[in-house]
Amino acid sequence: MSVLLLGLLLSASAAHADEGMWLPEQLPHRERKLRDLGLTLDADELGDPMGSPLGSIVTLGFCSASFISPDGLVATNHHCVADYLQYLSDADQDRNKDGYLAPDRAGELWVGPGSEVQVVEKITDVTVAMLSGMRRRTSDSTRERMVALQEKTLVAACERDRPDVRCQVASYWGGAEYRLIEKRRLRDVRLVYAPPEAVGQYGGEVDNWMWPRHGGDFAFLRAYVAPDGAAAEHAPENVPYKPPQHLTLNPEGARPGDFVMVAGYPGSTYRYQRARQMRFARDQAYPFRIDLYEAMIGILNDHASRSDEARARLTAHVGYLENGRKYAQGMLDGFSKSDVVARKEGAEKELLGWIGADPKRLRRYGPVLDELDQMQAVEEQEYRSDALVGWLQGIDLLGAAYTAWRLAHESEKPDLLRDRGYQERDRERLVRRMERLDKTMWIASDRDVMAMLLSRIAALPPNQQPAPVMALIAEWGGIDPALERLHTTPALASTEGRLALLSATPAELAASTDPWVQLAGALDAWLAPRRDLDKARKGARLRLQPDYVDALRNFTDGDLYPDANGTLRVTVGRVEGYAPADGLLALPQTTVAGMVDKAGAWPFDAPDRVLQAAARSRQSRWVDPALGDVPVDFLTTLDTTGGNSGSATLDSQGRLVGLIFDGNYEAMSADWVFDPVLTRSIHVDIRYMLWILDEVEHADWILDELGMGPAQGETP
Amino acid sequence: MSVLLLGLLLSASAAHADEGMWLPEQLPHRERKLRDLGLTLDADELGDPMGSPLGSIVTLGFCSASFISPDGLVATNHHCVADYLQYLSDADQDRNKDGYLAPDRAGELWVGPGSEVQVVEKITDVTVAMLSGMRRRTSDSTRERMVALQEKTLVAACERDRPDVRCQVASYWGGAEYRLIEKRRLRDVRLVYAPPEAVGQYGGEVDNWMWPRHGGDFAFLRAYVAPDGAAAEHAPENVPYKPPQHLTLNPEGARPGDFVMVAGYPGSTYRYQRARQMRFARDQAYPFRIDLYEAMIGILNDHASRSDEARARLTAHVGYLENGRKYAQGMLDGFSKSDVVARKEGAEKELLGWIGADPKRLRRYGPVLDELDQMQAVEEQEYRSDALVGWLQGIDLLGAAYTAWRLAHESEKPDLLRDRGYQERDRERLVRRMERLDKTMWIASDRDVMAMLLSRIAALPPNQQPAPVMALIAEWGGIDPALERLHTTPALASTEGRLALLSATPAELAASTDPWVQLAGALDAWLAPRRDLDKARKGARLRLQPDYVDALRNFTDGDLYPDANGTLRVTVGRVEGYAPADGLLALPQTTVAGMVDKAGAWPFDAPDRVLQAAARSRQSRWVDPALGDVPVDFLTTLDTTGGNSGSATLDSQGRLVGLIFDGNYEAMSADWVFDPVLTRSIHVDIRYMLWILDEVEHADWILDELGMGPAQGETP
Repeated sequence: MSVLLLGLLLSASAAHADEGMWLPEQLPHRERKLRDLGLTLDADELGDPMGSPLGSIVTLGFCSASFISPDGLVATNHHCVADYLQYLSDADQDRNKDGYLAPDRAGELWVGPGSEVQVVEKITDVTVAMLSGMRRRTSDSTRERMVALQEKTLVAACERDRPDVRCQVASYWGGAEYRLIEKRRLRDVRLVYAPPEAVGQYGGEVDNWMWPRHGGDFAFLRAYVAPDGAAAEHAPENVPYKPPQHLTLNPEGARPGDFVMVAGYPGSTYRYQRARQMRFARDQAYPFRIDLYEAMIGILNDHASRSDEARARLTAHVGYLENGRKYAQGMLDGFSKSDVVARKEGAEKELLGWIGADPKRLRRYGPVLDELDQMQAVEEQEYRSDALVGWLQGIDLLGAAYTAWRLAHESEKPDLLRDRGYQERDRERLVRRMERLDKTMWIASDRDVMAMLLSRIAALPPNQQPAPVMALIAEWGGIDPALERLHTTPALASTEGRLALLSATPAELAASTDPWVQLAGALDAWLAPRRDLDKARKGARLRLQPDYVDALRNFTDGDLYPDANGTLRVTVGRVEGYAPADGLLALPQTTVAGMVDKAGAWPFDAPDRVLQAAARSRQSRWVDPALGDVPVDFLTTLDTTGGNSGSATLDSQGRLVGLIFDGNYEAMSADWVFDPVLTRSIHVDIRYMLWILDEVEHADWILDELGMGPAQGETP
Repeated sequence: MSVLLLGLLLSASAAHADEGMWLPEQLPHRERKLRDLGLTLDADELGDPMGSPLGSIVTLGFCSASFISPDGLVATNHHCVADYLQYLSDADQDRNKDGYLAPDRAGELWVGPGSEVQVVEKITDVTVAMLSGMRRRTSDSTRERMVALQEKTLVAACERDRPDVRCQVASYWGGAEYRLIEKRRLRDVRLVYAPPEAVGQYGGEVDNWMWPRHGGDFAFLRAYVAPDGAAAEHAPENVPYKPPQHLTLNPEGARPGDFVMVAGYPGSTYRYQRARQMRFARDQAYPFRIDLYEAMIGILNDHASRSDEARARLTAHVGYLENGRKYAQGMLDGFSKSDVVARKEGAEKELLGWIGADPKRLRRYGPVLDELDQMQAVEEQEYRSDALVGWLQGIDLLGAAYTAWRLAHESEKPDLLRDRGYQERDRERLVRRMERLDKTMWIASDRDVMAMLLSRIAALPPNQQPAPVMALIAEWGGIDPALERLHTTPALASTEGRLALLSATPAELAASTDPWVQLAGALDAWLAPRRDLDKARKGARLRLQPDYVDALRNFTDGDLYPDANGTLRVTVGRVEGYAPADGLLALPQTTVAGMVDKAGAWPFDAPDRVLQAAARSRQSRWVDPALGDVPVDFLTTLDTTGGNSGSATLDSQGRLVGLIFDGNYEAMSADWVFDPVLTRSIHVDIRYMLWILDEVEHADWILDELGMGPAQGETP
């Protein structure tokens, strides 16, 4: 088959040197390819997740990060610490807007409960254990139950008596393989430096996903541990963590054409999905989501404009929604630009032809594809209802009540039989979440969002509406009276109220007169049977998807990488621009002068001290000799996705040359199909980070720690 | 002074090789520079406006055009023939949308009354005659009156007994020099070919002023004359005009870096205005206009969506307004991008320093600058009122009544003392305009626009409101009742009604009970004294502006060109891209493949036959060897402005290589200050025109006439 078709079908093959979110263990097998691309590190060394440099790569749970000093300094994106900055803000201080520079280590600020730096300490293949006792004829429900139980058993055994360790079973190839990953939880995370929002997220939503870009999207944290070196809760006497590995910086950065790689924790991709799923996403799911995002953004912006406090609390959430909207729109644009759906359908036809050409293959794979498509058809019908009810659970007060409801009921079961997220190991995280709400929730806007969601739910076909919820609301006199009742001095508005609820029993909750608790009960009456259905479907996917991937593997002989699943991956490529359109070239680097060109009204309101320093940027020691100015951002051909935010960008020797923080607009649909011609990752250049620290912030003590003080870092 | 400051102050100097809208007579003096830039034609030859190639360059009155065959075939832009296409459209046929290809000469369609191709036959310097009798102490009113009388006298003498000739006195350097231009009026203009709107204005308002661009903005007309060769009104027996000169085509087009020039009729520029005018334009005039444009566009779009006929009638007008809005916005963006106002103010300070350094200079030029600024201050105060009342005159029925009113009153004076536009020579044009309205006006949308304008006028400070108009409307019960009265079976809605009014006497008009006529009378009661004031101001400018330009000339020693004034100019430069932003390069050419990439929903709804031909474009004989595809549009460094639309783009030998149809977004503010780094003109490539004719339309008979039939045009 043609390289193009192969790429489309798999979106994963040796055909595209730059495609692939590789498992560390796959790297040694790709040694020659990596060397051809320009890697100078030993591939075996690179393939060791606890060695150098991968041992420096950590996760914040939702973003990637890396150790960059022997004293536990952590680099990540500014947008990854937005929630922390919000926690550190109040009506008097908006640290999201203004940023923060610790005057010294003593001035580093704890970023709040629930935050942690997770350091991988061990990875074990547990495929055999996970699938033991599984047979072809095992029913789907049982299959799901067995996998879930095995997973919880493994996790429980792993975490037993080790409060500082979090264990996770990651699934690969749709359930064909499993790894048990053990991570040390460094729970005392402090803010060292975050630039002002107008540097860190320069251009805001206007520039989000866009090139040319001038974002200084970086921030520094530090992990602290108990004086004896053990992971511990936040305490004043804690000391900086000494990581076993940390990255060194290459202050010369990366030039166009240079080999680069990114190591981090990409969240999820859909590269082995069927064309039918893509088509539904394009025709139904994304348009529906865009519409919903727009409605929510409108409501939140309206509230944000009413007071500084509302703005401070809603900024991060609006950003999240706007990002989601643009992402969905970018998907649609990407899908239509190269009509990937039709092309993927064509490629699937070739796969079907190959399967049909051999009776044995047809027997084995034929039913798999049919059944996957049938499942998809059912899920499509329930999509709207599921999505709206899902967003309803995102209403903070309802979410709190529902969490309490679920926890109470799950807590009656033996721990190992509870649903994921409601085990004893999760209790602390749930408590933290209840506490944190105090700083982040904004009831007034939530109320309007809830009204919007309920009215959309009420417009669904009757059999798709959550009947118990709608009955309760009808009993309360309709949506408006219901909202009025819910918002009359809600007990859950206080941390105490929420925490109290979290320790209530099912009986207490059933007897509660709190309307939020009653609503949560109605919601669960609708969702509980659906959870059972979902589990059966999940079991079916666990049975089918590995066979589908197996078919692909045999069809192509390609060396494949599994879909992103939030585990450590390495992707390799080079610094390179692209042609966004006929008649236009995107150059691979931007400069401080270009940042100044954009300066003006928000979101381009570069602070004065940045503009003043920029006037002298060409004389700075961080200048790129070829550009004649300090570089700001750069483009690479690397294959990344959400979750990679904050990932270290490394040169051929494994030295830090930047941080990835975004993909180009054309890269969004790469989550489904990687297009090597148009897909680019966007990185902040190490020299811009150093220039900001040096010439804007005069943060000499941080530069010293990085080995970039005036003496050491001077370029010849 | 620095090159930069000089360029800013004058926006005209040898400092920028590409800047300058040169008079043909200036070209021989610039021979060496032109040769250095790559001109291979003899500069003396190029400087002859009646020679080759300039003798081929003509005007349609509002757009430029050129003869491209010995049989009077004329090339211009598609957007220049939009009104003609509208005239040729009705409820059944939308020729704006569908375009038109004459099957043969007999099928060429007359584009309607009032259309003419004007061919310059003589240019005479009449400065001495125009300024004879003028003294320093001549009052401003008298100065204006003398200049106007001289102009009319010269024009009358020139046109006497020559109905086929239109004469015009053009003013240069703000009134320091004058030329009498005699043009033959070829009034039987027929449509030979116009591509569909989705080719001619591909990308519509979305792509307007934008790059990358893929517009096929060209159309072909033919001038017809009486069988004896004399200019004549349209008649079936007329024959194609034989122009004394016509351009030859270069089917190899222009490549990046090539010398090119544009010859045409740029409308107006403001390169010798004061910084204060720029500041007012930026802070007041453009924002005010943008707001007004948006209101009108909203109203017209609303009406256009109601019926096909409304759409057909309003399309051109909406396009005009949208273009105006984008232009104004582009001005603001351009002004803010490089803060040209502040920089021009700085440059003016240098000029003042130079003036102040010499008592003689101070005596001569000092008061000139002061007085220019004082005049500007007064005009700024009246700007809003003038603009709104001006747009009110654009309401078709009121415009018709007002024209009749003015004509009746002016007709009482001796012809030479009448205001410009209301002399006997203008009568025919006014009649044509009244007739043409039948095809173009749309009373329903005009009514809503009028309501909007009147309510804005009513919100002005009382002393700026046109009191007689407002009094009449109050008498009629307010805006809504007044509009109701005006629109109850208006007599002016019919051509007969309008033509009848055009021959009414002042007494008849004064006694009229037609509310439109009454409103026109009230309007004139407000405008008449303002016209007198305006004339005095014009006289003052005639006195001051030449001195200001003189100061600039002495200050800089630069070789200057006069501001654009709708007369024939030549600008030279090269094919070249630019950097629209840090990290982005605009390449100088686009391709058919890029046009296909954009294809989709309106305004990118490329017709099927174009897309089908495009699938084979790489095999076409019109391929650019370096691009490997047929080029569509290209960028040049040429200095052009509105009125240049349709201008021939010529190579170093004077052969046609394209037609200019737009400037880039960054070029808008070039009307005030030319920025050689960012200002680009956008042209349709001769090869795209030929490809459309050849592979899309199979218009072999036109290709043959162009010498581009299969036999002649084959590329090796």
